[in-house]
Formats: sequence, structure tokens, C-alpha cells
Amino acid sequence: MARIVMKFGGTSMAGIERIRNVAQRIKHEWGQGNEVAVVVSAMAGETDRLVNFCREASSLYDPREYDVVVSSGEQVTSGLLAIALQAIGVPARSWMGWQLPIRTSDGHASARIEDIETGALLESMGEGGDGREVAVIPGFQGMALGERVATLGRGGSDTSAVAMAAAMKADRCDIYTDVDGVYTTDPRIVPRAQKLSKVTYEEMLELASVGAKVLQTRSVGLAMKENVRVRVLSSFDDIRDEDGHRGTLIVGEEEVDMERQLITGIAHDKNEAKITLTDVSDRPGAVAAIFSPLADANINVDMIVQNVAHSTGATDVTFTVPKAELARALDVLEKGKDAIGYSQMIHDTKVTKVSVVGVGMRSHAGVAAAMFKTLGDRGVNIQAITTSEIKVSVLIEEDYTELAVRVLHTAYGLDAPDAAE
Amino acid sequence: MARIVMKFGGTSMAGIERIRNVAQRIKHEWGQGNEVAVVVSAMAGETDRLVNFCREASSLYDPREYDVVVSSGEQVTSGLLAIALQAIGVPARSWMGWQLPIRTSDGHASARIEDIETGALLESMGEGGDGREVAVIPGFQGMALGERVATLGRGGSDTSAVAMAAAMKADRCDIYTDVDGVYTTDPRIVPRAQKLSKVTYEEMLELASVGAKVLQTRSVGLAMKENVRVRVLSSFDDIRDEDGHRGTLIVGEEEVDMERQLITGIAHDKNEAKITLTDVSDRPGAVAAIFSPLADANINVDMIVQNVAHSTGATDVTFTVPKAELARALDVLEKGKDAIGYSQMIHDTKVTKVSVVGVGMRSHAGVAAAMFKTLGDRGVNIQAITTSEIKVSVLIEEDYTELAVRVLHTAYGLDAPDAAE
Repeated sequence: MARIVMKFGGTSMAGIERIRNVAQRIKHEWGQGNEVAVVVSAMAGETDRLVNFCREASSLYDPREYDVVVSSGEQVTSGLLAIALQAIGVPARSWMGWQLPIRTSDGHASARIEDIETGALLESMGEGGDGREVAVIPGFQGMALGERVATLGRGGSDTSAVAMAAAMKADRCDIYTDVDGVYTTDPRIVPRAQKLSKVTYEEMLELASVGAKVLQTRSVGLAMKENVRVRVLSSFDDIRDEDGHRGTLIVGEEEVDMERQLITGIAHDKNEAKITLTDVSDRPGAVAAIFSPLADANINVDMIVQNVAHSTGATDVTFTVPKAELARALDVLEKGKDAIGYSQMIHDTKVTKVSVVGVGMRSHAGVAAAMFKTLGDRGVNIQAITTSEIKVSVLIEEDYTELAVRVLHTAYGLDAPDAAE
Repeated sequence: MARIVMKFGGTSMAGIERIRNVAQRIKHEWGQGNEVAVVVSAMAGETDRLVNFCREASSLYDPREYDVVVSSGEQVTSGLLAIALQAIGVPARSWMGWQLPIRTSDGHASARIEDIETGALLESMGEGGDGREVAVIPGFQGMALGERVATLGRGGSDTSAVAMAAAMKADRCDIYTDVDGVYTTDPRIVPRAQKLSKVTYEEMLELASVGAKVLQTRSVGLAMKENVRVRVLSSFDDIRDEDGHRGTLIVGEEEVDMERQLITGIAHDKNEAKITLTDVSDRPGAVAAIFSPLADANINVDMIVQNVAHSTGATDVTFTVPKAELARALDVLEKGKDAIGYSQMIHDTKVTKVSVVGVGMRSHAGVAAAMFKTLGDRGVNIQAITTSEIKVSVLIEEDYTELAVRVLHTAYGLDAPDAAE
């Protein structure tokens, strides 16, 4: 017998027919004698509908009231799933965030989970009481100070599931989604991409932060911190597949086979825009004059390149910001032109960040060099570079995205061996 | 300064544009220095959508989970209205049923309100704290035993509003709806129907129970018990109309002008069906044999007529049941045929109950006689009769409905005097 958290996303909960399928999956786990808690998202599209209502009501909406409105989507699917489970003979009940409670920080609309009370929950899930109930918990929500409803920010249901698993000391947190696991790269670009059976938390963090959409970054960080075994798998797979072989397990480094590939995956991210300021004075404090006002405006700067100073004593500074923040960033920098002191501000949205990720990089030199050579050989120009301990990212022209991902996937030996080209 | 509860129904809350209009009406009351609590329904159609989800998930849904699902509609409109109020400079916050809390009985899906805690609410609405907040409360919901969400049954938001007004000792409970008050009869049938400026609780109860759709019967009963001054008015009227002259006030008998019309209104109800059992033995216990099994099956019998026994020692018994229960009633009576002992069972759904209502009836004999004569003169055949202290109802053939309502409206002097025929 194991204690399991199962999480189902909006696509899996979109309509009663799919909710019934989800109920069957849960029955399968519960029927094996497991204690099961389920975390659900709202029906696909519902949260957008509710967010739009709030925006329409006022562009400056009160985040506490926004939370009341948008948390209703998960409330609905929780109740419906409990009903669907009961209908197939599985005892079940819903637990709202305020009922457990799931206590959060006061940061409405993007709250952090601080504490989860699991006493009553575990009792209802165990052999005592009315007998082994499945607990259905709306994702994305909790209760902040003053007993106000709080939500965790978009995609927060993954985080809810991992936090529940940590609080319940669950043996596993299964995240059901519309893909069947984590791949070496986007299979739509590289048909020979391979599903990974295991990745480490850190690799998953890097992959998630550079565009692999499988899991929300925050949830991976939390899983790493709390050492929760997370499995990503598809809610559309055949339910009878042998359980052990499905999906991708996200675990600590000690569980991953050290003999495997140097590089785990190639990710790409088209959500960044590039800004270049020319002829910035090469004096102390000049760079701070650029980035402090951006930080004050809550704009996240990612890649930064500062060229060697020209003979004139001035330099060009290039960096990236999220595309959604570009207009605000340009505005901030325009206003700061005198304080910073630059000649021209140039921006470009037709760029992609391509990253290679892998814990194997720690013990192997030359990964970055191989990446630059591979891209250079195919005529792909690199506009900016950032590295971390287990990741190298380059910024390239958007039109070269697929080419770059494909040649890197091949170069690092990630192509599936048994498929025909 | 007054303390006011304002209640807005689903039509008034259908979409952000209408919610904004509602916010303006609230600002108008609040701006005059009043303490304002608002009770809202879900957007028109939303509760039906949610109820259908539950039915689709399982015909035997758990009412506790049903309540979790359907209560979300009012949660959404509460949050949105608070946002819309803030956007026009009116401090506001939503209070869910569990936050106040509004404590209810354990009868999920049709719970009764037992107790409302108003301490924090009144503080937020008063001069203390952050200053005179408008409280927005989702109608139709509360919290039952074990901190489970409970709903009050369809149309329960009127009851929520009256219960809030009673708990807060409000000066007035204004129910905004899509009609501008209570009329002497349905204006679609009698264009010369007049809006009543005042009706008594008892009259409103009788009118509501015989087909006037303005207010939910339960809410009127509660208003009478708690002596809450209720006003029914339209949320589509011009907001600048002089407040005192709008809508219909529902109050105690002592406030109503005793010199007014004998009869307050004429109502009709097409939701009943007639059943006749022929040749029932005229012995003690025969009638009980008919009505006990119907009561056991929770079928509400309204009008009952038992004819004088034939010379054979048998009698015909006629009664009405709600059309929605007809099939079940026929089934119960078919099964009980031997126990009851009747020859034939005949039913008819093409009937209407027409009622005249008025507290003036108490001190005036002859109201019923005048009714029967008026109908008889026009050739309307009466199939059954029931009376209460302030109401006379007759069952007639459905095709005569409009004729009967019109001639009675004229006969009791209710036609507006200033309109041309």
C-alpha cells in the first residue's frame, strides 16, 4: 500500500466525460489499496474566462476579490470529480483550501503555500472513519490571513499537488497531463526525440525555466526542496499500461544512472526579446544605471552581454526581457536615457533562446564549446550566451530555431537509435 | 442614515455591464451615508449550467458535493461586484457564506439558515475600521455542520437577503428584480393592472404561493416572522427616481391603509393537475387511504373536493397535485387501487387555479359568492374550490384563464381608473 497524490490538469478535467475517465484512473490506484488524494485544475478555458471577467470589471482589480472569483473553477471540478467517483463506487469528498486549511502567504493572486493541515484529511483517507475516502482537493487555492481565499498564480495546481504530497509524506506525486512524459526535446521539432524515464530536479528546473512546458517551475523547486518523488504522465494513456514504465520520474540526483547521456535535453524558448543599448559609457555604475530601474519596475532581465569597450571608451550592452514586458522595459529605459547615457536603443523580438541541459555537464568540460561549434558549422549566429552549472543557453535568430534544436539533438547523441531517419 | 440590504437577481448580474449598473445603484445608496450589505445571485443561466454538470456526473449526486459545485456561481458574482464597486470608488469586500459564517441546517441542497454571525460584517460596514465598506454576500449559500458548504435550494437568494436583513436589524431589504413591483394581476393579461405600493406579508405569501413569481415564498414567510420591511423594485428603473415612490413595499398589516380595496390581487397558477377517483367507498378511512400514501411519497396535494355520496354509498374524490408530480402520483394511486377501492382514475392537466387575495376579506363577507357569480355569469365552470382566511381559489378549465382573470379584476374594482379601455 502506498500513499499517492494524483494531479489532473485542465485538459483532463474539460467536461464530464473526461472527469469520468479521471475517476476511472483514480479507482485503479485506489482499488490496489492505496491511499489517494487528488488535486484538480479547473476545466480548460475556465480560469481564462474568470480572469477576463475580473479584468473587464476593472483593470486595477483587487487581488483578494480576483482570488474569490478565479478559485471557483477548481471548486467546481473538485465537487464534480467527487460525484463521479461516488458514482463508480469509490467513497470520495472534496476539501476546499479553506476547509483543510491550506494556509498561504498574504500575496493574493500569487500566494505561496506556508502550511497544510492534514489531520482530518489523512483520517478520511485511512482505514478509520467511514472507510478509505479519496480526498479531492482544488489546486491553485488556499487561505491567507484573515481567512481570505488566496490563489497561487497561474499554473499553481502543480505546486498544490507537490505541496500536498510533501505535507502528507506521500510516496509519490503523479502529475497527469496531456503529454506522456518529459522528452529530450520537443517531438514536434525532432521526431526522434526520446522520452526520459528519469530526470533530476535540477534538470527539470532548468528545462522548465527555458521553455519545456511540462511542469510549472515553482512546483519543481518545491519538489526538490521537499524531496517529493514526482512522476509526469499522460491522462490519455491506456490505463492498463504497466504502472512502473509510464511517464517520467523526477527525482534526486542519487537516483539517476550516472552512466547516461551527458546532456539530458534541448529546450527552446521564444518568449524573450532582445534589447541593445549602444555607446554606453564604460564607467563604474553605468550598468547599474540600466538594470536598477528595470528591477524596480519588476522586469526580469535574463541574458546579459557586455562587449569589450570600444576605443572610444564606450560599450554596447545587450540583454533579454520577457516579450510581455518589452513595452514597459523600453519605456523605463527611454525615461532613463540621460541617467544611463547611451546613443541608441535597438530591440528585436525575433529571437529564440536555445538551451542544452544536463547534470552530466558538471563532470565534463567542453559542452559549451561543442555547442558553439555545432551551431557555427551550420551557420547559426550566436547573439548572446548564458551558462549555469548544468545548462548552456544561446540566443539566436528565431528563423534558425528548428535547425539549431535538431543539430544539437543529433550532436549530443540524443536521437532515438531505433527509428528510421 | 439607514442600514439597508440590497438583493440583485440573476438577470441583474448577467454580465459585467449589468454588474457595473448594479454597482452604480449601490453607490447611490451608499453615497447617502447608508450602511449597505448586498446579496447577489449567480449570473442568469449559471446555476442551471452547474446543476446540469452535477446531473451529468451522476443522477444520484451527493448533495454535499452538489452544494460545492453550484455555490460557485454566487461566489463569482460576489467577487466581481466587489471589484466593480472599488472601481467606482466604493470600498467593498465579499464575504462567503463560510467566512461570516451563515450557519445552516444539515439539509444539503435545501438547507435552512439557522444563524448568521454579523459582528465582523457590521464593523466593516460601519464608520470604524477601514471606513464604511459595502459588504457583498453570495446568496443561496451557507455553511452546514462539519464546515461543509450548503445551499438553500433554488431561488434561495431572496431568503438569504431577508435573513441577512433580520440578522443585521436592517431598516429595509430591497429586492431588485426584473419587474418594478407587485401588481394587482399579471399585466400581460390585464393591461389595466395596477402596481401596488404596499401589500401585507400574508397577501404576498398567498400571491407567491398561487403563481405570482415576484418573490420566493420562503423569503416572504421569513420576512413576516422576522418583521423585515421588504421592498420589491426593478434594477432597470431610472436610478434617479424618487426613492420613496418606487416598487412595492411588503410590510405588516398595521402599516397598510385599511380603506383600500377589498381585494389586493388576482393570481393564476397553471402548475397543477387534477386527479379524480370515482366511486370511492363513503366509509371512514377511505380518504386517508388516498392521501396517506401520497404524503408518504412527498407529493403535495392542494385542492380537495369530495362530493356528497351517491345513493350507492360511494363518492367521487377530486384533488390537485403539482404537474411535475403527476406521474408519480398516478403511480402511487394505481398501486393503492385495492386498498383505496375506486372504479376509475381520471386526470386532467388542462386546468388553472385562479385566486383572489386580500386581507380586506377578513372583515367582508360575500367575496367568494361574488367570485362564483362573476365567473358563472361568463360561463366559466368551477371544478374545485379552496379558501383561506385571505384567499379564495377556484380550479377552472385552462382555456378560460385570461377571461376569468380579466372579469375578476374588473369585478373587484382593480382596473386602473385613468387608462382608456
